Amino acid sequence: MLTQPRWWQRTSGGVTAPQGFLAAGVHCGIKQRKLDLALLVSESPATVAGVFTTNRIKAAPVLWCQEVVRRGVARAVVVNSGNANACTGERGWQDAREMAERTAQALEVPAEQVLVASTGVIGVPLPMDAVRRGILLAAQSLSRSGDDAAEAILTTDAFPKTSAVVTTLRGVPVTVGGMAKGAGMIHPRLATTLCFLTTDATVPAPVLQAALQRAVAASFNRITVDGDTSTNDTVLVLANGQAGAPPVEGGEEFERFTQALTTVAQDLAKMVVRDGEGAQRLVEVLVEGAADDADADRAAFAIATSLLVKTMLHGGEPNWGRVVAAVGYSGAAVEERRVAVWFGDVQVVRGGVAVEGVSDRAAQALRQPEVLVRVDLGLGPGRAQVWTCDIGEEYVRINGSYIT
Amino acid sequence: MLTQPRWWQRTSGGVTAPQGFLAAGVHCGIKQRKLDLALLVSESPATVAGVFTTNRIKAAPVLWCQEVVRRGVARAVVVNSGNANACTGERGWQDAREMAERTAQALEVPAEQVLVASTGVIGVPLPMDAVRRGILLAAQSLSRSGDDAAEAILTTDAFPKTSAVVTTLRGVPVTVGGMAKGAGMIHPRLATTLCFLTTDATVPAPVLQAALQRAVAASFNRITVDGDTSTNDTVLVLANGQAGAPPVEGGEEFERFTQALTTVAQDLAKMVVRDGEGAQRLVEVLVEGAADDADADRAAFAIATSLLVKTMLHGGEPNWGRVVAAVGYSGAAVEERRVAVWFGDVQVVRGGVAVEGVSDRAAQALRQPEVLVRVDLGLGPGRAQVWTCDIGEEYVRINGSYIT
Repeated sequence: MLTQPRWWQRTSGGVTAPQGFLAAGVHCGIKQRKLDLALLVSESPATVAGVFTTNRIKAAPVLWCQEVVRRGVARAVVVNSGNANACTGERGWQDAREMAERTAQALEVPAEQVLVASTGVIGVPLPMDAVRRGILLAAQSLSRSGDDAAEAILTTDAFPKTSAVVTTLRGVPVTVGGMAKGAGMIHPRLATTLCFLTTDATVPAPVLQAALQRAVAASFNRITVDGDTSTNDTVLVLANGQAGAPPVEGGEEFERFTQALTTVAQDLAKMVVRDGEGAQRLVEVLVEGAADDADADRAAFAIATSLLVKTMLHGGEPNWGRVVAAVGYSGAAVEERRVAVWFGDVQVVRGGVAVEGVSDRAAQALRQPEVLVRVDLGLGPGRAQVWTCDIGEEYVRINGSYIT
Repeated sequence: MLTQPRWWQRTSGGVTAPQGFLAAGVHCGIKQRKLDLALLVSESPATVAGVFTTNRIKAAPVLWCQEVVRRGVARAVVVNSGNANACTGERGWQDAREMAERTAQALEVPAEQVLVASTGVIGVPLPMDAVRRGILLAAQSLSRSGDDAAEAILTTDAFPKTSAVVTTLRGVPVTVGGMAKGAGMIHPRLATTLCFLTTDATVPAPVLQAALQRAVAASFNRITVDGDTSTNDTVLVLANGQAGAPPVEGGEEFERFTQALTTVAQDLAKMVVRDGEGAQRLVEVLVEGAADDADADRAAFAIATSLLVKTMLHGGEPNWGRVVAAVGYSGAAVEERRVAVWFGDVQVVRGGVAVEGVSDRAAQALRQPEVLVRVDLGLGPGRAQVWTCDIGEEYVRINGSYIT
């Protein structure tokens, strides 16, 4: 992707930026006061693709969505926050299905084309009276603004997350939009990430699935480790073809569309990281010179998930030994004497030992709102990029008391 | 070990509880005020065994110790705190060797029989003037008390950690003693653990190594994950034979000795967990009913290392969904409908769903100084036990500013 031209440009709006999408966000009483139910509707049947948690314990709405995605056609997404409908047994499954059915009735579309997502506390049955009320209310509140929907899917998030870009496919402008929720993470495995993407491009479901997997690999999977996810993680994309562009089948159109989708997904993934509870900084970890890309991944994720590194990034002291130690236990091949480390553009380790006289400048580099931690292992062509955040006292305070 | 009779009983003292060991702890100026250099000496040559970090980046003193252990004979251990002598290149190796040589001169023993350990900040050369002064001072301060030594090896620890037990080998009483340092951990991979064990039993070096590996597997490796360790982790045991018991070769004597060694190692490992920075609780995670022991291990470590579980344990709210979610991403085989969870003796999950009406009692169970989190996967005979601690705001405060 690095050598591709940049085909897209940013535009305003989130999930309703593409043509033919409506959205709503309402308060129905799952949470005490905040918006807690969102609805996203395509005016015409859309193809759909999805990427879901690899947790062996999957929430009922995830299982429901997997069936819809298998069929490949969707008209709407209903999302509640405040309750994950996970570990709720047979009743949870009935509740997820009822959410789809009630939404289908209100919108006069088939229930099999309604996707469902939930996020919040685990193990408590959904308050279905509130949910039913919310679905009716949301169906009456649909508009061309995605703002309330982006608000209604949040849990401990500090701010709503939306993005949209425009590109052209054979000269026809098409738009990709999206919204996401996710915070509370030292690492996204620990909290649910939901992401809903929309486009007015025409994309057959299998092509859409391929594009989504590429986009997620370069975004949400760069802030998480495969296999380590919550019970509810869900990324969905709906393509309704309303821009009237020719179908995306392959070739440059596929590259253009995937680049646009990846850009929106990366925007949202970085916002999720930046919203880490109590976090002050967005941190990019870049590992180069690893024996191969898999080793670079191991080293980058070990650094990005080390609590000692993350607390260092919070405190702002350039304790680079924690970075080197993380590389050492990551499983990546490493030769101590070849290791180099930079904080921002300040080199702090050369040949495996400290560079003298740079502490003040290194501390300065660590105290920026966006921080680069770069490691060169000096062994080969392997390269990996991961985004993370610092961890502060606030994280512990929030997660020590969080129930709903 | 569960079906063995208990052959040991506790006694007072730490590393100097066994006959023929002397110790000292002094302040030499590596730290500003606290004791920072410890010396442990056997009056006669002792056999030695060791278990070391699996981090691919090993501190110089670890490399030195591995050579001494390979030869199998030791007379003394010199330990400094406040500086890890890690990532210090060729100079670090010279400094580690000089520590052994200066200690050897002061004690009039061969340098090849002096073990060296360091803990503290990484990447800064040792202040050798202070170290040299400390070695001379410590050699003049040796006594039958291990208290100062136990104090001098600490870094961010809240309290010194010592233990000792007596057992009999063919009717002759023998003693095993020990001291450890370690804290600052959400997980011990993140901070150095040092543990020094002593005994007046007679144990050939290869037998001593086998016994130590069993003891560590049931203690320090139950609070950490193999392969995820600091650059300096070191567990050493010296056996000087001064009790006059027949050599431990195998059979019941080996079991008796190993049981005593394991008991001291477990005591110390649990103290390390209890000393987690800002921690209020010692938490035992017990997984039963896993498909096999390896799966039980995966599930137990996933629970014990989940930050959402650990912050829950700090806050004391019975948010058991976090426990179930951790099992789900652990990689262990799991069937949601078979999962049962207890906090203390209060069952909170049965058949994968919440037990109603137990929240208050469950919260009560979580707020004890010692908490049991028990999971039954209902699948097989696999069983694993892991110790961990809660995590509080204090952890973040300490590690955000810790340099020395």
